Amino acid sequence: MTVREMAAKTHQAYQSFLKQGSSAMKDRILGSVAEKLDARRGLLIAENHKDLLAGKEQGLSAALLDRLTLNEARIDGMIRSCREIISLNDPVGRIYDMHVRPAGFRVGKMRVPIGVIGIIYEARPNVTIEAAALCLKSGNAVILRGGTSAYYSNMALVSVLQEALLDNGIDRHLLSYLDSRERSAVDEMLQQDDLIHLIIPRGGESLIRSVAEKSRIPVLKHYKGVCHVYVHKSADPAMARAIILNAKVQRPGVCNAAETLLVDAALAETFLPAALQDLQKAGVEIRACERTRDIYSEKVLAASEEDYYTEFLDLILAVKIVDDIDAAVDHINRYGSAHTDAIVTRDIDAANTFIRNTDSASVIVNASTRLADGGVYGLGAEIGISTDRLHARGPMGLEELTSYKWIVLGEGQIRE
Amino acid sequence: MTVREMAAKTHQAYQSFLKQGSSAMKDRILGSVAEKLDARRGLLIAENHKDLLAGKEQGLSAALLDRLTLNEARIDGMIRSCREIISLNDPVGRIYDMHVRPAGFRVGKMRVPIGVIGIIYEARPNVTIEAAALCLKSGNAVILRGGTSAYYSNMALVSVLQEALLDNGIDRHLLSYLDSRERSAVDEMLQQDDLIHLIIPRGGESLIRSVAEKSRIPVLKHYKGVCHVYVHKSADPAMARAIILNAKVQRPGVCNAAETLLVDAALAETFLPAALQDLQKAGVEIRACERTRDIYSEKVLAASEEDYYTEFLDLILAVKIVDDIDAAVDHINRYGSAHTDAIVTRDIDAANTFIRNTDSASVIVNASTRLADGGVYGLGAEIGISTDRLHARGPMGLEELTSYKWIVLGEGQIRE
Repeated sequence: MTVREMAAKTHQAYQSFLKQGSSAMKDRILGSVAEKLDARRGLLIAENHKDLLAGKEQGLSAALLDRLTLNEARIDGMIRSCREIISLNDPVGRIYDMHVRPAGFRVGKMRVPIGVIGIIYEARPNVTIEAAALCLKSGNAVILRGGTSAYYSNMALVSVLQEALLDNGIDRHLLSYLDSRERSAVDEMLQQDDLIHLIIPRGGESLIRSVAEKSRIPVLKHYKGVCHVYVHKSADPAMARAIILNAKVQRPGVCNAAETLLVDAALAETFLPAALQDLQKAGVEIRACERTRDIYSEKVLAASEEDYYTEFLDLILAVKIVDDIDAAVDHINRYGSAHTDAIVTRDIDAANTFIRNTDSASVIVNASTRLADGGVYGLGAEIGISTDRLHARGPMGLEELTSYKWIVLGEGQIRE
Repeated sequence: MTVREMAAKTHQAYQSFLKQGSSAMKDRILGSVAEKLDARRGLLIAENHKDLLAGKEQGLSAALLDRLTLNEARIDGMIRSCREIISLNDPVGRIYDMHVRPAGFRVGKMRVPIGVIGIIYEARPNVTIEAAALCLKSGNAVILRGGTSAYYSNMALVSVLQEALLDNGIDRHLLSYLDSRERSAVDEMLQQDDLIHLIIPRGGESLIRSVAEKSRIPVLKHYKGVCHVYVHKSADPAMARAIILNAKVQRPGVCNAAETLLVDAALAETFLPAALQDLQKAGVEIRACERTRDIYSEKVLAASEEDYYTEFLDLILAVKIVDDIDAAVDHINRYGSAHTDAIVTRDIDAANTFIRNTDSASVIVNASTRLADGGVYGLGAEIGISTDRLHARGPMGLEELTSYKWIVLGEGQIRE
C-alpha cells in the first residue's frame, strides 16, 4: 500500500466516522484500548524489548533508551491517559454564538473535527496511545508516524488501537500507522494536502523544521521555548526570587523552563546578588550582561548575543539588566520564541502593559513560566504546544483539535 | 528596497503598533482615510483613467475593465466601507474564558492581532481600501499586492492610506504595497515566513492554487464554491422551488450560488418538472442524471461525471436524483467543495443528520445558499471566505483576523 493509498483509506474512515462517532461510541473505543493495554502487558514489554536491544546495539544514549522504554509503570500511565480522556467532555457538536438575524433565520457555529491529522514524533512509544486517544475523542482520524527506534513497540500498540476499533465496528484505518522504516514515506505524507488536514510534529527542533519546510499541509508546532522572567522595579523581591528559581531549575529540560532573566536597572543592585546566589546554589551557570557583572561577578560568565536567542534546556541562565518595561518587552519580542514569558510586578499598569505588548502565546503575571501546560491550564490533556499564530496558540487540548462550521436554520429565507 | 526589506519594515511597524494602536487611534486613522478619499476624488479618477487606458490597449475584457473602474459611486462605496468598519467593535483585547485554577491563579485568553498579513488580489482597486481597513481595525499590519492592471489606481490609494497613518504619527509601513509590476516579487513574499504570518489570496482558482502551492506562510482561501441544494422527501415543495431558484439565479457568478440540485427519489416525480421549468424560464441550462431525464427531458442535457465537480459560475445547473439523505450527503462530501450546502426538509431528524454529516464550512437548513456571506451572517464586513479547516471556516470578518494569547494572572504560584 502506498502512502497515498493509506491516506485515502484514513480519509474515507474519517468520513464514515463523522456519521458513526457518537460520544458514547468514542468512549467505548477508548475503554477497549485501556482494557487491551492492561491484558497485553507481557506482549507489549516483549516487543519493546526488541526495540531496546536494537537501540543498544546502535549505541543509543541512555536518555534515548529511557524514553524508548515501556515498563509496567508506563503501561499504567497509558491506561490512565485513556481513562482521563474518557472523562473529558467531547468538544464535537457544541453549538455556540447562535443568534437570530434580522431576516429571521438563526445562524451560529458548531464544533467539528479537523479531519485527518498526521502526528510525527520520535522515540517515546506512549505518545502513540496518547495522541491517538486525543484525536479519536475529538472525532479526528489520525496517521501516526513514530520513531524508527520504536518500531516493534509501536506496531504492538497500533494493533491494540486497531482491534479496539474493529471490536466496535469501526474501520481500523481511522487510526493508521506509517511504517517508520521507510524514511521517504514522511515526505510523501506531507504532500497529501487533499487527504490530510493537519500535521503536528513533536520532537527536536531539527525534526520540526524539516517537517515545516517540506509540508504542503498546515503544521502546528513550536520550534523552541526561549522563555523569559522579567523582574519589574516594583516586584516583590522574594516572589521574584522564588519564581525565577522555579522557572529555571524545577525541570530545566522542558520548553517552558526560563532561559533568560531580565531585571529592571532600578532594582538590579538590591535584587540580583541574592537571586543569582540562589540559582548558583541550585547548580545554575549564569551568563550575564556587563551591567550585571558590574554588580555581581562571582562565577558569572559574559553573555554573548547568541546566548539570548538560545534554548539551553539545561542549568544555564542568561541574565540582562534592562532600563524599563519597554526595553524588557522589546528584548522578549526580539530574542524570544513567543512561547511563554512572565513579569513579576506589584504595579497594575506594568502588568497591563506587559500583557498587551508581549507578543507571546502565554503571558504570565506573577507566576512561573512552568505553569504554561495543558494540564495546569485545565485542558485535561495536551497534544502539544503551538507558537504559531493561527488556529491555536500555546497548550493544545481537545478543543484545539476541532474546527467549526457555520449552521444556518431558516424558514425559507432567500437572498433579496 | 527588496521584498524582504519591505516585509521587515512592515513587521517592525506591526510590533510598534502593538503598543500604540488603541481602538480610538485605529478609528481616527480610518476616519482620515475616508476624508482623504473624499478630498481626492479627482486625482483617484485620473490615476484610474491611466489604468483603464492601458487596459483597453491590452485588450482587457469589458468585465475586467468594469472591475478595474473607479468612479464616484465606487469611491462613495470605499468611504462607506471605512465608516462601517469604524462602527464595528474592535475585536482586539477582549479577554474571555477567564477562570480560577485550583492553585489559585487565573487563566484565560485574550484576542490579539495575527501579525503581518499579505493580501494578494486581482483587478478591483476598492479591495485595496477594504482589505487595508479590515486589517488595520483588527490591529494587523498588511502587505497588499494588487493586480498589475490596477497599478496607478493602487498607488494613489496606498498614498491615501499611508498619509492617514503619518498624520496620526504611525509608521507608514504598517500598510505596505508590493510593486505589482515585478512578478517575481510575489514568490519572494511567499517565502518570508518569519516576517509574514498569513496570506489571503482573493481571485480566480488558478491565482489561488499558485499562491497555495508556493507559500511557506499559512494561507486562508477557497478555491471554488460547488454548492448544493438537497430537497429531502419531506420538503415543502414551494419552499424548495423558491430556494433552488434563488440559489441558482439571483447572482450566478458568485461562489455561494448553487451548482447542483439533489432531489430525493420519493419526491422527484412530483417536484422536478415544475422546479426545472421555473429554472428554465429563468434561463438556466439543466444538465441532469438519467433518472431525472426519465421524468422530465425537455431541453435537459445529460450530466457528465465532471459536471458534478464543476463551479459553473453561470446559468447552468447539474441535477441528480438520490435515494435518500445518506446518498445526498455522500454526494456532497465527495463532489462538493465544502463551501456551502443546503437541505430543504420538514423532518427534524433529516435536518439534524444533514447538519452533522455534511462536512462543509456552511450548512444551511431551509434557506438559500446565497445567505453564506459575512454581511448576511452579521460579521459587518468580510475579508474573504475560507474552505480550509483550520483557524477560520466560511465567511471571515474582523474576529477571524485575530488570534489569541493565554493570560495567566498569579500571586506568586510556582510549579510543584
